[in-house]
Amino acid sequence: MADFPRRVHIHEEGPREGFQIEQGPIATADKVRFIEALAGTGVAEVQCVSFVDPKRVPQMADAEEVARAIQRREGVRYTGLWLNLRGMQRARKTPLDIGGQVGLSASESFSVRNNGKDTEGLLAAHRQTLDYLVENDIPLVSGIVTTAFGCNLEGAIPVERVVQQAERLLAVVGEYGMKLPVLRLADTVGWANPQAIAAVVGAVRERWPEQRIGLHLHDTRGTAMANALMGLQMGVDTFDSACGGLGGCPFAGHAGAAGNICTEDLAFLCEEMGIATGIDLEALVECARLAESIVGHPLPGKLMRGGTLARFRH
Amino acid sequence: MADFPRRVHIHEEGPREGFQIEQGPIATADKVRFIEALAGTGVAEVQCVSFVDPKRVPQMADAEEVARAIQRREGVRYTGLWLNLRGMQRARKTPLDIGGQVGLSASESFSVRNNGKDTEGLLAAHRQTLDYLVENDIPLVSGIVTTAFGCNLEGAIPVERVVQQAERLLAVVGEYGMKLPVLRLADTVGWANPQAIAAVVGAVRERWPEQRIGLHLHDTRGTAMANALMGLQMGVDTFDSACGGLGGCPFAGHAGAAGNICTEDLAFLCEEMGIATGIDLEALVECARLAESIVGHPLPGKLMRGGTLARFRH
Repeated sequence: MADFPRRVHIHEEGPREGFQIEQGPIATADKVRFIEALAGTGVAEVQCVSFVDPKRVPQMADAEEVARAIQRREGVRYTGLWLNLRGMQRARKTPLDIGGQVGLSASESFSVRNNGKDTEGLLAAHRQTLDYLVENDIPLVSGIVTTAFGCNLEGAIPVERVVQQAERLLAVVGEYGMKLPVLRLADTVGWANPQAIAAVVGAVRERWPEQRIGLHLHDTRGTAMANALMGLQMGVDTFDSACGGLGGCPFAGHAGAAGNICTEDLAFLCEEMGIATGIDLEALVECARLAESIVGHPLPGKLMRGGTLARFRH
Repeated sequence: MADFPRRVHIHEEGPREGFQIEQGPIATADKVRFIEALAGTGVAEVQCVSFVDPKRVPQMADAEEVARAIQRREGVRYTGLWLNLRGMQRARKTPLDIGGQVGLSASESFSVRNNGKDTEGLLAAHRQTLDYLVENDIPLVSGIVTTAFGCNLEGAIPVERVVQQAERLLAVVGEYGMKLPVLRLADTVGWANPQAIAAVVGAVRERWPEQRIGLHLHDTRGTAMANALMGLQMGVDTFDSACGGLGGCPFAGHAGAAGNICTEDLAFLCEEMGIATGIDLEALVECARLAESIVGHPLPGKLMRGGTLARFRH
């Protein structure tokens, strides 16, 4: 337990990854209201929208409108997702805090399906992006290895493959004299178990002891909180999550995919163990209820129903 | 990770603790069907009913009928819950496998509310039960300390208090020359976090190194799977759980209490880490779907929606 971080950094992805998978249209005003409520909870970063092809992801067709309507709050980063240089250029025209990102999938099949490019294709695209970052003096904010714990198309993913993809990401940014402020390992389709978390995080840490590692977890099979605990035990201090447990990946190739790890449940777990999140849990529970009312169906988060323990403590 | 048990023993409590909290009446035949399906999954023990006052728990008014209707399967223990000697005598008249149980709450207020007796009153009742066990040559099967991680009425529970109550249980059974085959620590109202699991299990283990310890976990605030992982890391090899995540405690004093830790999600977590459960996960997922159709509302279990990984593995 000595390895628990003292503080964790939570990147709230509900408005983007969460809303993205919802079938029904969500009003721009509701998206903005939710983002503003989240930004008021103390969460450090909110991923607001994705700048992707509206034909593939109709829910994100109003990305620019959402980005421009947000009443910004000081101290909060408002992020967005994009998959290629064109998406980034779109994103940069909005008031969002758009930094450089690079990513590879540990599964070639998933890479082609999700990004339309294999590893070589993505690395070529990343060089274009990195050129653009240098030309425009834009900081690199993160790198991600997706399907790092398994893939519905390719099955189990060897640990060495994740290390190899991390190495390629670090090498390509290294060509530009850059480092990855955080290397995120994503359990994109909910395959991870705590032993796999320990193995993959351990292998990456052993190879690059100074590299900050983040986890992007899904609760597809109920293991997300156990996986997060193992991450914390391994010293991971950066997590992507979604308020209310919103989310899922529309291209993951299986129906009924449960959402991202639930932000308020994760923050509760941390706070109960004395790990600071900077988050007002009661305010975040209110956000989860707001999310439920916006999407119009129950969300899987537990804390929003069980309530925090504050009212019972003497 | 070296401390993980090689095999865990799961006591399925869905038919009792799960159905008990359901508002609508559940047909006796549905209860029997669910119990028989569970017994076909490889789970070692199924808690079928409770022998309690039908005025307090109307759902269990047909306990005898259920117990007698079950088509028994060899190798499975069919257990029941009872709170006093009279309940045990009722239970003993059925074909269920009724052994002796003793329990105390770590919270006096919860004890009085849930059992109508404080610690002294329960110990006096346990002596009556233990006399009866000796007279009738009935084995003692378990002891339990409830609200071992916190209580909605009394708030935080000091670790020393749990050790004290465990000591009283072990002392009273010791008076009869008996031991507890398993000492179960219950997070009755969903207060536990992994650090508390480590502290309480660690304190009990330190005091009685040879005592087998079980965990009874609730997922009220989303921490159950992380708590189970910590239990496994501490070498705990016995868990109570409920298929589909059924459950909750009707006397716990808060609405919206989430259920017990979900059996199939827990079994999946174990199996993915190479810890044997003896359970056929696909069959158990079918049971969870059956439970959902019986109670007529969605249950919180995740694996029943995400599916196991078997079909994706090459």
